[in-house]
Amino acid sequence: MNRKPKILLTNDDGIRAPGIRYLAKALEEVADLTIMAPVDEKSASGLSITIKHPLSVQEVDWDDQKRVWCVTGTPADCVKLALSRYMSDPPDLVVSGINPGSNAGRNLLYSGTVGGAIEGIMHNIPGIAFSVEDYIKPKFDHTLTYIQKIVSHVIENPLPVGTLLNVNFPNSNGGDIQGIKFTRQGAGMWIENPDQRIHPTEGHSYYWIGQKEIKESEPEDTDTWWIQKGYITAVPVHVAELTDHRMLKERKNSFEKLF
Amino acid sequence: MNRKPKILLTNDDGIRAPGIRYLAKALEEVADLTIMAPVDEKSASGLSITIKHPLSVQEVDWDDQKRVWCVTGTPADCVKLALSRYMSDPPDLVVSGINPGSNAGRNLLYSGTVGGAIEGIMHNIPGIAFSVEDYIKPKFDHTLTYIQKIVSHVIENPLPVGTLLNVNFPNSNGGDIQGIKFTRQGAGMWIENPDQRIHPTEGHSYYWIGQKEIKESEPEDTDTWWIQKGYITAVPVHVAELTDHRMLKERKNSFEKLF
Repeated sequence: MNRKPKILLTNDDGIRAPGIRYLAKALEEVADLTIMAPVDEKSASGLSITIKHPLSVQEVDWDDQKRVWCVTGTPADCVKLALSRYMSDPPDLVVSGINPGSNAGRNLLYSGTVGGAIEGIMHNIPGIAFSVEDYIKPKFDHTLTYIQKIVSHVIENPLPVGTLLNVNFPNSNGGDIQGIKFTRQGAGMWIENPDQRIHPTEGHSYYWIGQKEIKESEPEDTDTWWIQKGYITAVPVHVAELTDHRMLKERKNSFEKLF
Repeated sequence: MNRKPKILLTNDDGIRAPGIRYLAKALEEVADLTIMAPVDEKSASGLSITIKHPLSVQEVDWDDQKRVWCVTGTPADCVKLALSRYMSDPPDLVVSGINPGSNAGRNLLYSGTVGGAIEGIMHNIPGIAFSVEDYIKPKFDHTLTYIQKIVSHVIENPLPVGTLLNVNFPNSNGGDIQGIKFTRQGAGMWIENPDQRIHPTEGHSYYWIGQKEIKESEPEDTDTWWIQKGYITAVPVHVAELTDHRMLKERKNSFEKLF
């Protein structure tokens, strides 16, 4: 690529979250950035979009960055609006994050961070989602050189159409990172643990969906497995077509014969 | 199966929507039903879940159905709560719908209807999502016998672990249905057309994400292609692991060598 690549940044933690600032810091010298992120935190919003309410967009005053907006919607809303209304040319890449909390394994479809990257894929624009495992005291400094390297590699060696890269960093301040694994998606996920509680005055019960990561019995050589061993993981995730082709082949005749 | 199958019903249009009433009507004689649906419409909520607010659950008075609740959350929230708090044994199947508006092609990851079925898959419970193409004046009567047949077939011939069935009916009152196709996912989707409008008193602009279905240049022999020709479509959709295995194989060495 002879010109500077154009990159659209988003996240699901909102425009004020530290993660997206680090992402901008990592990429501002190597790319022309447009930044469009939710005004509020939208964790676990997946690929949801806002179709029943209007959306407001506000310009954000942010250091040296000129093209920064926040949106009263989800990461997928942000990407839709940026592509259709705020960028004259489509970006070369959508980069989403950095999310505090793992989006490895089966978490990815729940993740608003990954949702932002999926929305790019729906418009045939490749994407990368970045997350760090620790969501309590996330550390980002050491991720910057990795992010630069991964983004440059993807710009120079385009992803297949319909595929994004889901990158997760292990809980670390950088010194003990074991390396990076290009690997497959694991089965672990944050599970719900709907806590039953009692309303303070009305006495009726309500629920709160908590989060607890399942870490046991992970299949070997998956992202969730390698992260536990201190590796950064990058999983190529295909979202454009999800057909179970083996089942389609095996059952087509018996299914269609039913009718 | 010697006993009556246990089926959990949900939808994304809310407990008062006609679609889920038709679903219950189609299945109440062949299955033990538990019904848990959002109190409000949650269209386009995908697999999003509610983790930043508490959820309330209310029992719903509904004809002969005894186990009916509504939840102040998304379809995925409903399925999580039903499985963990409202069903003593896991259901044999999660059935979601009937949604007015196509969830064929690339719409499926945006769809709250499909999201309810995906949430079941995350707990290794198979699922089926049903939608009709027309979202303005949806017609459901003719779908009931098809739904009964498809559900019975899936109960007797279990889906592979991690795979759900995405079923879409063409715009029809039944008489002109051409048949049923067990097929692959198409590329069409409802696209955003963010309409820019002006606030009535404040004068600033806002956006509204509209919906417009792309119907052109569909690959042949896909769900979106067959629906246009008047067929019911059923697509086996695998969501448990989304790794792009071809890319993983081709790029593993060159990617890991970067670091």
